[in-house]
Amino acid sequence: MWTLKMVGLGALALSLSLEVLCRLFHRLRPVKALNEVHFFPSEVACVERIFTPSSTHLCSCPLPHGVDTSFSRLLRHVLSASSSMDLCIFSFSNMDLCRAVLALHRRGVTIRVLTDKDYAAITGSQIGALRKAGICVRCSVGSGYMHHKFTVLDGRLLITGSLNWTLSAVQGNAENVVVTDQPELVQPFMKEFHRLWELNEPAGNVSTRANHR
Amino acid sequence: MWTLKMVGLGALALSLSLEVLCRLFHRLRPVKALNEVHFFPSEVACVERIFTPSSTHLCSCPLPHGVDTSFSRLLRHVLSASSSMDLCIFSFSNMDLCRAVLALHRRGVTIRVLTDKDYAAITGSQIGALRKAGICVRCSVGSGYMHHKFTVLDGRLLITGSLNWTLSAVQGNAENVVVTDQPELVQPFMKEFHRLWELNEPAGNVSTRANHR
Repeated sequence: MWTLKMVGLGALALSLSLEVLCRLFHRLRPVKALNEVHFFPSEVACVERIFTPSSTHLCSCPLPHGVDTSFSRLLRHVLSASSSMDLCIFSFSNMDLCRAVLALHRRGVTIRVLTDKDYAAITGSQIGALRKAGICVRCSVGSGYMHHKFTVLDGRLLITGSLNWTLSAVQGNAENVVVTDQPELVQPFMKEFHRLWELNEPAGNVSTRANHR
Repeated sequence: MWTLKMVGLGALALSLSLEVLCRLFHRLRPVKALNEVHFFPSEVACVERIFTPSSTHLCSCPLPHGVDTSFSRLLRHVLSASSSMDLCIFSFSNMDLCRAVLALHRRGVTIRVLTDKDYAAITGSQIGALRKAGICVRCSVGSGYMHHKFTVLDGRLLITGSLNWTLSAVQGNAENVVVTDQPELVQPFMKEFHRLWELNEPAGNVSTRANHR
């Protein structure tokens, strides 16, 4: 009789401890990281619905509608920012991406843009439009290009790759964009942004750019 | 007496199950992924030791020796390839990186290089040297730039970012390079390399490149 009780209690203790450990294991297991790669050139499609998802108005433009493309995914990630956007971009002339950044600015997202001094002034650059809207923009100074093409959103999501934010890059070139929320990748980029932001503080800087490609 | 035995056996069952689960947890836990980020411009340092690690000859060049830089880390990763290298690069004029690719080729690593047609022919491009050594090179055809800057080594390690393989990018520009072995990131790049490699198969292709930046 006692032996039976002992075995029963032992089994109970074992199953309880298994249950506790399984729950602990599930709680400790990290949430699956976001790791996406998007390739360009992107198919061309209407992105109006991405900017006005709740609108009942149907866009009548001749582009394909309701198509999920590399560019629409990139736009959605950019528009997902809710508190901050740190953007480090060599060339920025894409009007849809500019519209997305301006939309974030209107929503109260804190935006900082660091860009290349030479490319900020080229025809079609949207840097002037960002500045005009009151967004804080700094231009790199120094002898080399500010050749990055990355943004960190809300201090948690990194978008980086070969893609400049231009129409020809999106629709014409072979390009890549990595989207990740892995701290091991996000944090170095955040740190580098802060470093470059301070380094390119406007006051007291003198450009010494040489003839680099 | 029986109660004491019951408690003892319960404790024993609990500790045994804990031990078993802990071992299982450690076995199931994945090996830590490699995720590195390197920023440029890199400090300038002698890289001779990286190419000839077993040499007893001490380099007498005037550059700093024994310094670990972003570029030396990049070079070491490139030289770690043992079976294959798929390189998709917009601009390739860096002589140390060319030396590394040639060293891999001599070691018997299977190398495929896909590059931009226009940039393959610019002054200082190392694409000709790769071809001359017998490395399989394809140039992109089509209307946009082949603007990628990535390589997949041994089908397991991805190196990607904003950095073209040029001296000005390495020593002059603000650039980034991500090094990762995460399959979620490596595999899409491998797949894209294969797609582009087939797409740019030389026979039968006619260039229709327009005036893109």
